[in-house]
Amino acid sequence: MTILRSEVRQAQQLASELFARAGIVLTAGERENIEVAGFGLGNLQEQGLELITYVNTDRYCAKELVLFPRQTCPEHLHPPVNGEPGKMETFRCRWGSVFLYVEGEPTPNIQAAIPPGSKASYTVFNEIVLHPGEQYTIPPGVKHWFQGGPEGSIVSEFSSTSRDEFDIFTDPAIERMPVIIED
Amino acid sequence: MTILRSEVRQAQQLASELFARAGIVLTAGERENIEVAGFGLGNLQEQGLELITYVNTDRYCAKELVLFPRQTCPEHLHPPVNGEPGKMETFRCRWGSVFLYVEGEPTPNIQAAIPPGSKASYTVFNEIVLHPGEQYTIPPGVKHWFQGGPEGSIVSEFSSTSRDEFDIFTDPAIERMPVIIED
Repeated sequence: MTILRSEVRQAQQLASELFARAGIVLTAGERENIEVAGFGLGNLQEQGLELITYVNTDRYCAKELVLFPRQTCPEHLHPPVNGEPGKMETFRCRWGSVFLYVEGEPTPNIQAAIPPGSKASYTVFNEIVLHPGEQYTIPPGVKHWFQGGPEGSIVSEFSSTSRDEFDIFTDPAIERMPVIIED
Repeated sequence: MTILRSEVRQAQQLASELFARAGIVLTAGERENIEVAGFGLGNLQEQGLELITYVNTDRYCAKELVLFPRQTCPEHLHPPVNGEPGKMETFRCRWGSVFLYVEGEPTPNIQAAIPPGSKASYTVFNEIVLHPGEQYTIPPGVKHWFQGGPEGSIVSEFSSTSRDEFDIFTDPAIERMPVIIED
């Protein structure tokens, strides 16, 4: 499943507006290169993620994640790579709110709405709700997914080295690395 | 050289105001525990740093640094610890401006003012000026110091594991870990 360049541009524009609303300053180059991950599912507004990688070295990584209102980053985990433990990541909510789900005791009546048609690909339901200033660290190898609240969300991600291409998604239809069609 | 509790409280209050002005949201607990580093020099407004450590694991670290107007974090480097290379850090300016100095070709007519009485403890003058959205990565083992611009500065620091107690300062009078006197 591909994504159109026009769709990418539109998502970049919307993400830029949320960054501005949150008071997070980006360079012009960063704004033009916001990564738009549709996960090959063809429904970016429902299942997708927008992000900027500030730095990714062999020791640490820092990103800014954007979720549109009720947009969901699908369930996945970070496996060990080259003998190193999987990616460990700390999510710190900067703006809006985010519903985060990890392995553990399922929370009754979760606040997120599972994307229709993808119910089988969401299997962990221990809920953590993050508002601005709140944060949570996801240990390596733990399945997780997250959804923007009613206004959307901006989340700073501090982590060990990021190797997105190794992420393991519960939904076998997902392709992490996008194929963009110029339109 | 010690620092008074009242001085710490005052610096925490001023740092909180700068965070609010920058639109960076903290929890009440974080605001109350802002670290105030006077480096044992007894002139916090001239040589000092205020910081919050969001997370510091054995793999990565993230902090928010505050510099008051023209406040200077003294020259230091991060040595190897337990066979690991020294701390590597990325400074991203979020608000205000910061003058950063690292080893390399000295910049003529630098914009920072070296703290009077401490000239011998500042030896590297390759200048990098960061405005909001701009960032710079300091390699392990490289001497550096930095000063807030006329309004002060808030800087996100993304790094490998932080072990401040091993930092090597050029000024032999510096004590990184503060001794606070209750007054």
